[in-house]
Amino acid sequence: MPVTTGKRADAQRNVAAILDAAAACLVRDPDASVSDIAAAAGVGRVTLYGHFASRTELVDAVFVRAVTRAHEALDAVDLTGDARQALARLVASSWQVIDESRMLLVAAQHTLPPERIRKLHENPMRRVRSLLERGRAAGVFRFDLPADWLVAVFYTVVHGAADEIGAGRLAAEAAADAITATLLAAFTPPGDPVPQVTATG
Amino acid sequence: MPVTTGKRADAQRNVAAILDAAAACLVRDPDASVSDIAAAAGVGRVTLYGHFASRTELVDAVFVRAVTRAHEALDAVDLTGDARQALARLVASSWQVIDESRMLLVAAQHTLPPERIRKLHENPMRRVRSLLERGRAAGVFRFDLPADWLVAVFYTVVHGAADEIGAGRLAAEAAADAITATLLAAFTPPGDPVPQVTATG
Repeated sequence: MPVTTGKRADAQRNVAAILDAAAACLVRDPDASVSDIAAAAGVGRVTLYGHFASRTELVDAVFVRAVTRAHEALDAVDLTGDARQALARLVASSWQVIDESRMLLVAAQHTLPPERIRKLHENPMRRVRSLLERGRAAGVFRFDLPADWLVAVFYTVVHGAADEIGAGRLAAEAAADAITATLLAAFTPPGDPVPQVTATG
Repeated sequence: MPVTTGKRADAQRNVAAILDAAAACLVRDPDASVSDIAAAAGVGRVTLYGHFASRTELVDAVFVRAVTRAHEALDAVDLTGDARQALARLVASSWQVIDESRMLLVAAQHTLPPERIRKLHENPMRRVRSLLERGRAAGVFRFDLPADWLVAVFYTVVHGAADEIGAGRLAAEAAADAITATLLAAFTPPGDPVPQVTATG
């Protein structure tokens, strides 16, 4: 039994080392190879393939871990009070998390199908939906477009901003305010004035 | 010389047949293989690889052709008069074109890097930019966000809608109005009322 335990502990340490190394390599180069990642993790390719059957499976595992951590970090955001101000806070915090792992998102986009990436965001997106519903009940968000669509707009605009920064067309420090201003306008009921967004600081 | 001409004509016919077959196969299955496409085109794999060095190159060529045709089709859209109504017409026509080739977009997303897909949309996106500038001059579109960003919002929201339809979360027939309502709101200057969108029919 001690032997098994030792082997299990080794395996867990290997998996953690491989995931850490993969995240570090993919942030530097979204197309980093399995050999690069194995070398950075200090394990052989055979060991790596013993834990992850393919590069795609490894990228998926790295991305799942990043999204899960981001989801946990966003639990700290205060989503009470005025729904529009709460949306601005959620954007600012989501954005910070996404900006930190923007290169991982690029690696995921190079490797995983878009549906898989969107699927992994289902948990984090639940808080957008609940905020949307609260803002609708308060009369500050629109009812004339489907909730599914407005949640998708949040997702697509935030990820679009990551692409724009990557392409050098948007300044990273301008992103949170641009996203917030865009989403608040997109969520405003027809006939109501578009809110002025002041710097979220 | 007649032999060379004959060979060239054969080659051109082969390329056209391969591109047509690839488009038809990829619309049915975004992950269609080179063998499937060669068989559908009635050519051997060696002939296909003589024209396209890789599956990626072939998907790229199919997508370039689709985007070029879409761009030409959009030249027929009347973009004069009220900028907001022109935006609604541009969305309706762009959307129709995108919806027709939505599965090709999925194939492109599975195969080409996002930057390449965006790059291929540069020409079609020029008309969005010029419409944005005209609407700004007329005071109906916002100045407080960068033009690059607002053009990106157009691109990302339209393509986001294609993903949402693919995922079964948005009804295809509701897409044009949802996109138009979202973009008109996003483009409205702060303080101005969000326009009510009536069905574009």
